[in-house]
Order: sequence, then structure tokens, then C-alpha cells
Amino acid sequence: MKISILTLFPEMFSIFNHSIIGRAQENNIINFDIFNIRDYTLSKHKKVDDYPYGGGAGMVMAPQPIVDTIKAAKETNNAKVIFLGPRGKTFNQEVAKELSKEEGLIFLCGHYEGIDERVYKHIDMEFSLGDFILTGGEMAAIPVIDSILRLIPGVLGKEESFMEESFSDGLLEYPQYTRPHEFEGESVPDILLSGHHENIRKWRRLQSLNITKQRRSDLYKNINLTKEDKKLLGIKNK
Amino acid sequence: MKISILTLFPEMFSIFNHSIIGRAQENNIINFDIFNIRDYTLSKHKKVDDYPYGGGAGMVMAPQPIVDTIKAAKETNNAKVIFLGPRGKTFNQEVAKELSKEEGLIFLCGHYEGIDERVYKHIDMEFSLGDFILTGGEMAAIPVIDSILRLIPGVLGKEESFMEESFSDGLLEYPQYTRPHEFEGESVPDILLSGHHENIRKWRRLQSLNITKQRRSDLYKNINLTKEDKKLLGIKNK
Repeated sequence: MKISILTLFPEMFSIFNHSIIGRAQENNIINFDIFNIRDYTLSKHKKVDDYPYGGGAGMVMAPQPIVDTIKAAKETNNAKVIFLGPRGKTFNQEVAKELSKEEGLIFLCGHYEGIDERVYKHIDMEFSLGDFILTGGEMAAIPVIDSILRLIPGVLGKEESFMEESFSDGLLEYPQYTRPHEFEGESVPDILLSGHHENIRKWRRLQSLNITKQRRSDLYKNINLTKEDKKLLGIKNK
Repeated sequence: MKISILTLFPEMFSIFNHSIIGRAQENNIINFDIFNIRDYTLSKHKKVDDYPYGGGAGMVMAPQPIVDTIKAAKETNNAKVIFLGPRGKTFNQEVAKELSKEEGLIFLCGHYEGIDERVYKHIDMEFSLGDFILTGGEMAAIPVIDSILRLIPGVLGKEESFMEESFSDGLLEYPQYTRPHEFEGESVPDILLSGHHENIRKWRRLQSLNITKQRRSDLYKNINLTKEDKKLLGIKNK
């Protein structure tokens, strides 16, 4: 997949040279193309922002540099343009799955007070990371890109790809333990040492159900409890 | 504020050397202390993870390296330990505001399948960035830290701090325009050139109300519409 990033802070994206995404780049599964919006301004003083019409504090990103950068990115990546902004739909795993099927994506990162409204006709989708404010769109683009790229076949190693399945049933993770057997006076639950795979599976399932119920009632109420789930939870089947 | 970060990928946090947070570091408003968890393992081969008890794919981060890193961080930053993980409460602006009042914070970034359950007694709070999966906790820590730090007095410049107020009333942003007056055949709305501040304020308010209603009905239903809002929206007061 080709990821084009349009930003005023290209250096920030060196974060993807490390860890799992760094390895995927080395293996040519993912290809980054980073554009500095400032390189595309026609302003004499390399300005990219200006005062808002109608007054108010803050600066607005001018339309010309952004639109010309989008056009430049599209020359080598004819892909959807995604803007990270507070007005967008909240990003989630379903969106990540959809976008991971694309051959390329273009991400536009805003700064200052916002972008000139007339840029929107060049934008295909807008996503918000959540209900909190960031210093710039880069801070949202980074986790969004990360969550999309890890879904591309070959990006995650065999060991790493397991988590996906665990999450996809809508439950939170069960507790995990590794060596040593005793740590700070606390031992690994006996059941995990029993070697009885079926009992371990059931114990983990019950833990996941209880943790989800306790911490994320919003997720829990959307779960279709199986007959086994109800038995584990001590709920009588009607 | 002192921010201690416990991670297997210290290089990723060079992202905070740029832009607004970079400037706040230069001005000594914020101070970062980054710990590589791998430096604290007692394992001969510098291992930080191991197979899960009870079987299953993936590796679990062992308790000893994490707990010893937490202890090291606390020596110079006696602060709350925050873990970024999928089981946590969803992070939002209210949490950012609360945490921005602390003198210091310690962030623990997990990797692999998760952390050994026995580490949790050393963790004060767990937050999730949203309902999507990331390659590692670093990808969540970065926007979370960014959104907390920008609320610390002196971090944002006078120009930049405006957005906060706009957001805090629970509405999405109104459209912004800057020069040129005409771009790609589209002109700035006349009202913004009228110089009539009161009408501009009302126009912007109506735009914010409509955009919020259209895109984020979940936010809109929590707004207490003022008498003026109802008038702008053409809703009759009872």
C-alpha cells in the first residue's frame, strides 16, 4: 500500500521507521511518500496560513498550498484523500478494516485553527480520533495509519496477528501470565498450569466476559451471548 | 510537568521534539524522561517477553522488567502510572483536563499480546485511545500525551489557545475562510466580509449547530440549546 502524507511536519513521520511498520517498509509491503505542504505555497514568504475572514483569534490554513499538495500527491498515488479533523466521524476498527483494502491512501494533516472550507471539495473522508483536542492532525494520523497498516497481509508476523481475532469478537482481553510462576508473592492461576486446554479456554472466556461487563458495558450489551457463555456466567437458559 | 515514558521504542518519542510540544520543551515547561524497558530486564539475553502460561499464540511482556522500570521512573517522578491498553476507559478531553493538573505523569506502553496481569497493581489508571487496535502502546501514548500537554499553561501560544474555547461548548467548528477571497470559483460568504460582528457571531453559531447536528447527533443531543440557538434554528420557544 502506498501512503501519502501531507503535513507541515514531515519529520514526525519517522516514527514509522521503527518496530512493526518499519519492518513492513523494509519488506516493501508499505511505501510512504511524505509531502511538506510548505513546499507547495506560492506565497513569497512561504506562508501557509492567514487570518480568518470575519475575525477571530488563530490562523487558518490557506487553500492554495493544500490543494496543490493534494494534486502533487495524486500524481503518483491516485487514492482517497482522508482528512484528520474534529468534525469527522470517530475512527474505529471497522473503518480501519475498510481502508486497509485500498491500494493507496492520502492523509492530510491540518494545523492552526483549521483549514479553509473550500479545501473540503478535494477531501473524500474526514475522521476524528476521539473527543479530545490535539496540537495537530499528525497526532491523529499516526495511530490511524498504524491501525490500518497492521491489517495489511504480511505486515504483522505470525505471532503478532493473534490479537486481531481475540478482539474481533467484541470482548476485552482475558488476563495473561508469563514466567516467573511467582512474582511479588503472586502465583499464576492454577488452571493455566493444568494443561487442560478446554478448561483453560472456558476460564479465559469467562474472564473476558466479566472484564468486558465490568469495564465496557457499551461493548457488553452488543454481545450475543452463546449458550456456553450463559452457562459460564451462571445465567439460566430460557 | 515531568513526563516519564516507559517503552521498548524510545526513538518514537522524538516526535515531541517538533512543533508546539518541541517549543514547550525548549522553554522548560515540559520535561521528558524516556526509559527503555529493555534496559531493566534481568534476563541474560535482554529478553522482555515470554510465552503465555496456558498456551496461545503471541508473547506476553514479563512482569520483572516493567515493574523495575516503573520503580526507576518513580525515583525522579513520583507520579501516577498510566497504562495505554485496550481494556481501559476511552480517553477524552475531560480526562486530558484532569491529568493536565498533575505535576508529573508516568506512561507505560505495552507491546506484544499484553502485559503480565501481575503488573496491574503498579498501574494507577488505564486508558484506551478508541475502539481500534494498534501495533503498540506508543501509538496511543503519543496523542494522549499531546492532548494533555497542550492544556498546560504556557504550552500553547496566544493564537493557538483559541480552539479550546470553541470546542468546550460541545459543538463542532464552524467553517473557516482565509485569503484569497475567491478560490477555484468559490467566494468567501458575504457575511464574513460585512464587518458586522454580531451577525458574524450568529452565523458561525448556526453553522456550528447545524454541522454538529448533521455529523455528531451524539454530541448534539447533549447540548442545552439557548433561547438564541432556538431562534437561529427556527425552533419555536415553548
